[in-house]
Amino acid sequence: MSLDPGVPVRRTYSYLGPAGTFTEAALSQVPEARDQIWRPVRNVGEALADVVEGRSDAAMIAIENSVDGGVSTAQDALATMPGLRIIGEYLVRVNFVLVGRPGTRLADVSLVAAHPVAYGQCLQWLSTNLPEHAHLPAASNVASAVGIVDGVSEADAAIAPPGILEHYDLELLAEEIGDNAKAVTRFVLVSRTVAAPAPTGADKTSLIVELPEEYPGALLELLEQFATRGINLSLLASRPIGDELGRYRFVIDADGHVEDERMADALLGLRRFSPKVMFLGSYPRADRAIVHYPERYSDDVFVEARDWLRGLISGEPEA
Amino acid sequence: MSLDPGVPVRRTYSYLGPAGTFTEAALSQVPEARDQIWRPVRNVGEALADVVEGRSDAAMIAIENSVDGGVSTAQDALATMPGLRIIGEYLVRVNFVLVGRPGTRLADVSLVAAHPVAYGQCLQWLSTNLPEHAHLPAASNVASAVGIVDGVSEADAAIAPPGILEHYDLELLAEEIGDNAKAVTRFVLVSRTVAAPAPTGADKTSLIVELPEEYPGALLELLEQFATRGINLSLLASRPIGDELGRYRFVIDADGHVEDERMADALLGLRRFSPKVMFLGSYPRADRAIVHYPERYSDDVFVEARDWLRGLISGEPEA
Amino acid sequence: MSLDPGVPVRRTYSYLGPAGTFTEAALSQVPEARDQIWRPVRNVGEALADVVEGRSDAAMIAIENSVDGGVSTAQDALATMPGLRIIGEYLVRVNFVLVGRPGTRLADVSLVAAHPVAYGQCLQWLSTNLPEHAHLPAASNVASAVGIVDGVSEADAAIAPPGILEHYDLELLAEEIGDNAKAVTRFVLVSRTVAAPAPTGADKTSLIVELPEEYPGALLELLEQFATRGINLSLLASRPIGDELGRYRFVIDADGHVEDERMADALLGLRRFSPKVMFLGSYPRADRAIVHYPERYSDDVFVEARDWLRGLISGEPEA
Amino acid sequence: MSLDPGVPVRRTYSYLGPAGTFTEAALSQVPEARDQIWRPVRNVGEALADVVEGRSDAAMIAIENSVDGGVSTAQDALATMPGLRIIGEYLVRVNFVLVGRPGTRLADVSLVAAHPVAYGQCLQWLSTNLPEHAHLPAASNVASAVGIVDGVSEADAAIAPPGILEHYDLELLAEEIGDNAKAVTRFVLVSRTVAAPAPTGADKTSLIVELPEEYPGALLELLEQFATRGINLSLLASRPIGDELGRYRFVIDADGHVEDERMADALLGLRRFSPKVMFLGSYPRADRAIVHYPERYSDDVFVEARDWLRGLISGEPEA
Repeated sequence: MSLDPGVPVRRTYSYLGPAGTFTEAALSQVPEARDQIWRPVRNVGEALADVVEGRSDAAMIAIENSVDGGVSTAQDALATMPGLRIIGEYLVRVNFVLVGRPGTRLADVSLVAAHPVAYGQCLQWLSTNLPEHAHLPAASNVASAVGIVDGVSEADAAIAPPGILEHYDLELLAEEIGDNAKAVTRFVLVSRTVAAPAPTGADKTSLIVELPEEYPGALLELLEQFATRGINLSLLASRPIGDELGRYRFVIDADGHVEDERMADALLGLRRFSPKVMFLGSYPRADRAIVHYPERYSDDVFVEARDWLRGLISGEPEA
Repeated sequence: MSLDPGVPVRRTYSYLGPAGTFTEAALSQVPEARDQIWRPVRNVGEALADVVEGRSDAAMIAIENSVDGGVSTAQDALATMPGLRIIGEYLVRVNFVLVGRPGTRLADVSLVAAHPVAYGQCLQWLSTNLPEHAHLPAASNVASAVGIVDGVSEADAAIAPPGILEHYDLELLAEEIGDNAKAVTRFVLVSRTVAAPAPTGADKTSLIVELPEEYPGALLELLEQFATRGINLSLLASRPIGDELGRYRFVIDADGHVEDERMADALLGLRRFSPKVMFLGSYPRADRAIVHYPERYSDDVFVEARDWLRGLISGEPEA
Repeated sequence: MSLDPGVPVRRTYSYLGPAGTFTEAALSQVPEARDQIWRPVRNVGEALADVVEGRSDAAMIAIENSVDGGVSTAQDALATMPGLRIIGEYLVRVNFVLVGRPGTRLADVSLVAAHPVAYGQCLQWLSTNLPEHAHLPAASNVASAVGIVDGVSEADAAIAPPGILEHYDLELLAEEIGDNAKAVTRFVLVSRTVAAPAPTGADKTSLIVELPEEYPGALLELLEQFATRGINLSLLASRPIGDELGRYRFVIDADGHVEDERMADALLGLRRFSPKVMFLGSYPRADRAIVHYPERYSDDVFVEARDWLRGLISGEPEA
Repeated sequence: MSLDPGVPVRRTYSYLGPAGTFTEAALSQVPEARDQIWRPVRNVGEALADVVEGRSDAAMIAIENSVDGGVSTAQDALATMPGLRIIGEYLVRVNFVLVGRPGTRLADVSLVAAHPVAYGQCLQWLSTNLPEHAHLPAASNVASAVGIVDGVSEADAAIAPPGILEHYDLELLAEEIGDNAKAVTRFVLVSRTVAAPAPTGADKTSLIVELPEEYPGALLELLEQFATRGINLSLLASRPIGDELGRYRFVIDADGHVEDERMADALLGLRRFSPKVMFLGSYPRADRAIVHYPERYSDDVFVEARDWLRGLISGEPEA
């Protein structure tokens, strides 16, 4: 770290590279990341390890519905790597372009490079527009597009995120080729454990919870911790713990902030219910939608009840 | 009140008199009441008014299964008179004697004085042993027995609590004439609002709760406040509020003390659920039976969860 | 029973007598009881025994908020006498008159005869209007009023139901002397076990349920049987079973008819939950208020689900 | 189809090919499939389409924890293709071998072909034993191993299921190279809609359910349908419906058979709760573990309750 006040220390952000990925598009939405160091890595594990081990200040990772793959991996990585905290959420519309070497025409394309997941998401377009094509599997869409430019790949075209066009000299053969025009991927920005950003009224809290033991109704009891405090869940995903079939952990996004009384109370309830609760963070929602909830779960009601209880215990006459 | 340190101020206890009632038997179980002033009154309302208005330090009242009547009255009085707190619980086995003027024999008895409730509880014995008798309704069993001694009552015999024999010169005509040999009445000792006696591990908490509004499931939600904290209820009675048919308040005895974490948490939940929660007190159970509950609702678990939450909010790395 | 077809057999109705009671006022609301035999009895037990043993076709009994006393008794009697069924519900506004011998004036009254419960309900009026009076306890209001006419009672006046004026030559000293102008008593008409009257859309189902065993949450589970089928409860009363303190049965009135799908399903759930469910009957509500419930609990939805399940099991392709 | 009675018609089973996959290993566990036609296909969609369109009698597909990928795809395909029914469940232990052309030695390997998912599952072994290797992504493990034999692939070795050794002449370079020795994949055999196989006491029921609308507690209500009938869930997975972020359908495996009373009742409850319940089938569990549940949810209890209700409605006197 520089002691020279004229040279500010720059922050480092890890993301799934290379330049041009959807993850890069997510990172470009972060105002604080502008003009900082962007560190491309090969997968979510590397990105999070950068943060844990101090090589980066934060990592942008896909967490839901990603077409780069890796979403279950991200959930599992967060579940097993302590010391991390989600500090922001970003949405990227997912669509694809088909690109080739400069001068290529669509009619020339017979071998299409693509990650199997992206390939699956463009299958309808490909069947209609390139009925005779063959598929060359790739570990990375952007890498295979780059391979086409470099002459390393034998493919004629690659499926890639639109962002790739800002970084490489490629021929745009087709746009919006994804079969689902509404597809969106949700990304989160992850730092080391820090205090949560201040509540905004439009917040989300992410958790990973294991059931304390298997019995009919255990999951029910977990969910009641939220329902009985008027808290809506925007995500509930089960992930196998991996030790045996039928054992799951639950990845949860709940509407609200840990500093909201009802959320704090729900977290206390969860913790008492299961010692395996991992708090991943409270942070502003990407859509900035204000969280609504019944008046009876407002902070005031919690504070009033505590005052009342304090009075009871002290033996003061009731008002 | 005396300022002379040599003359200790005596405490006053109100109870349903006159001497000889089951309520007096309950009061005689209170070590602190020995050698103090015992103030007989005519009904529960008077007893509680004595406390509220400062004429007595405490009142002993029947609260469940009483044969002196008045139990609903007691619940309703507690529900509507603020400023009171239950500080102890006492059980009295309920059985009856049949008494007459000295010299009377059972064969002489044709008119039996009794409160209608006590009369109903001895009906089987009376049908068998005095098949030809008639019933003279009385507002108080003890009073009608006294009336017989005094020659004021035209009855030949009275049904009365066994305690009456310690106070009046009466002929014991028969003992244990109640039809239910196991009958017990539960009494509570009520003082002005004070801090609860210290937890003993064998405590009970009494509450009166109104539902916030009528909807299917409102009572369910009330009861969940206890069930989700592993708290057993030993009493749940519904009492009409009295403003219209179908509106009830609930009289609740819950196992545990307001200073137990799980009970304090349940009270907070109740208060948030309904603004009309009346805390009547936490006090040792009459039977001194230790309250058992699942380990997951122990104080330690609550304290640990709070520490954990505090750490989360501060942003400390997890241990 | 007459074999002569020209002389129709008259039905017999038992009720708490003598003529002039609130119970008689309830019976006079039953069109089918007009011009039939009305059989006055001394208490609820006798009335129900008349039905069980065939002396009467039906009995009218007070079941909630009665001032004649006997309501807990009625609930307990229904809980322990098999072979009965509630077939109708009636409401009687409860207010009182003060009556004396012809020629008596209010200023002459010093001794007032009254059942202790009725006396308690007029206490405010009596304190204001007859501050110097004394109370003569009575086992029956109507009987003590009759005693005044007959010269058998030494009282100057009696508290009684307004209906008494239609039957006896009494001086009306004051009307509407009850402290609660809104007081209402609910009565039910009870016959031997028969099929329920047809559903009207404004029905009520009465049940008595014992918890299968005592555990935190057992009552919760009972109530869930109703809440999870959208059924509102208009009455929930706990009554001690009487074998030991802390054991209760629950007296329940639920909105709806046993032939409503949701109620039938709730009854099945209740019966599986507890073998001690006593069905007291489904019958039209006294207030004829149509029962409203969420569309998702309508008969159609139940029927459709059964058809769907039948299709699944048979292996038919889904529509 | 042959009309000659001497030549029995053979059944056709579709599976993810080519020969040697884990799916083939699952199919080899099906006694009825022996000596029948096994039809290799390229993905789950093709396998299920074969069944729907009548090209196959049944399809074997991976449904949980697969390393061939495709599990979410399988769940989504079942959710959107009507007319299918799961009729059996099979478990295959997942481990991998490293294979090369005959004569290859481990020391010669520098380029390893593998599907990205399988590659990820062997990463630890590869890092230790082949620290200098590079990865050649493949769409199919077996296909890339075959490519090595055929000389089509430039890779030196391929990660593949052990079953491959029975079909191709390959050098076994290493066994059990998967990082998780306990990994298991669950497969299901899917036919057109038929009646379920008879209950065995060790059955499972698979369902896909959409919540009727989004509100706090909707999922809770779904799960209560099972918990309140003593039914354990062995799988609960949420899958995005795909129309917008935050909307899920739930893939559920519940212990028991549709012909078990408690399961039939739960399905009725589910159907009334949500019109979007898809029944995928009841079938014997792969592990043949008898399903245990509280006595109060046994068939007898359901049957007895129905008899009781029938009696009530008919108005028969209770026994």
